[in-house]
Amino acid sequence: MWIQREITLRPRPRGFHLITAEVESEVPELRSLEVGIAHLFIRHTSASLTLNENASPDVRRDFESYFDEAVPEDAPYWTHTIEGPDDMPAHIKASLLGPSLSLPVSRGRLALGTWQGVYLCEHRDHGGARSLLVTLSGE
Amino acid sequence: MWIQREITLRPRPRGFHLITAEVESEVPELRSLEVGIAHLFIRHTSASLTLNENASPDVRRDFESYFDEAVPEDAPYWTHTIEGPDDMPAHIKASLLGPSLSLPVSRGRLALGTWQGVYLCEHRDHGGARSLLVTLSGE
Amino acid sequence: MWIQREITLRPRPRGFHLITAEVESEVPELRSLEVGIAHLFIRHTSASLTLNENASPDVRRDFESYFDEAVPEDAPYWTHTIEGPDDMPAHIKASLLGPSLSLPVSRGRLALGTWQGVYLCEHRDHGGARSLLVTLSGE
Repeated sequence: MWIQREITLRPRPRGFHLITAEVESEVPELRSLEVGIAHLFIRHTSASLTLNENASPDVRRDFESYFDEAVPEDAPYWTHTIEGPDDMPAHIKASLLGPSLSLPVSRGRLALGTWQGVYLCEHRDHGGARSLLVTLSGE
Repeated sequence: MWIQREITLRPRPRGFHLITAEVESEVPELRSLEVGIAHLFIRHTSASLTLNENASPDVRRDFESYFDEAVPEDAPYWTHTIEGPDDMPAHIKASLLGPSLSLPVSRGRLALGTWQGVYLCEHRDHGGARSLLVTLSGE
Repeated sequence: MWIQREITLRPRPRGFHLITAEVESEVPELRSLEVGIAHLFIRHTSASLTLNENASPDVRRDFESYFDEAVPEDAPYWTHTIEGPDDMPAHIKASLLGPSLSLPVSRGRLALGTWQGVYLCEHRDHGGARSLLVTLSGE
């Protein structure tokens, strides 16, 4: 069984945002899969997806602090500065975290660990709406 | 063909550990796949999976040195410190390396390069046993 | 439908290189997939794959500058130095970016965003030809 659906994520502020429940509700066909893979793919180069702790908002805030420190906006080596100081760091952060997640599906649900949640990582100051392409395969 | 199996990895010390042979031996159904994908997924947010050099133990030691330097425990910006100084860095390292590997399967074996091995990346001082969910698909 | 094909990428200089068109032309079977996943896998531990901005060469140059700064060749903690100063940083960069990409396929094409392109990330000074294993699945 193959199912593909595009989800439009509403604009969110720069930072890390939990979207697990939103994604699950947008692909109800998940419930009909006994075993499979849910592939989430963000169609942008300045936002990304990752999986991390789903309980404490301070974890997500610390993600933002860490990545802002690790990929500084004012680094002297940036040459692609035409789109603003947040653009080139956003591209780097997007590749460090990656554009996709492949998540196992078991008995109609994402088979995540207790503490795992899907993060939308918005790396731009004003990234706008984001397009997510979800591809389900399995049986 | 879809097969899914949970593997419990015994507790290991903080660091990078080769687990290729252990994973292969736990999913003997791999041998019946002519072509496919083996998806390995760790169900935790403070340990991760990566693929790297399978020969020299000093490479794995240098991974530990690098990530400890790149994600310092004493950074002034951490606010999520309630679970100990190794916790928040473990979350960041887990997202930098990622929770899953999708590996090609050819003629009954993982189609890895000569020097590629699967690393369990244990980012906590006392992470305990880790749950790995393996999903095989192919024909 | 499952199709697997090995592609040999010609030697490229250290840096980040757009290979989207080359990969697409090497797997013409892509056109027969209505929906699916294209899995690209590099069989090396000192080169990697990522997805990023496909228009400006200065973005790819800034990637090289960033990763050279973030993973320095002269760090005092490297112990695996026998293969040259570019080797151990290449292993780290390869794991930060990852050995594979899982890309959605829609109506016979990679369903990438407008600005997304596949990068071959060559982390060695003289990496030589690189082997890419492409696995298509779908219907």
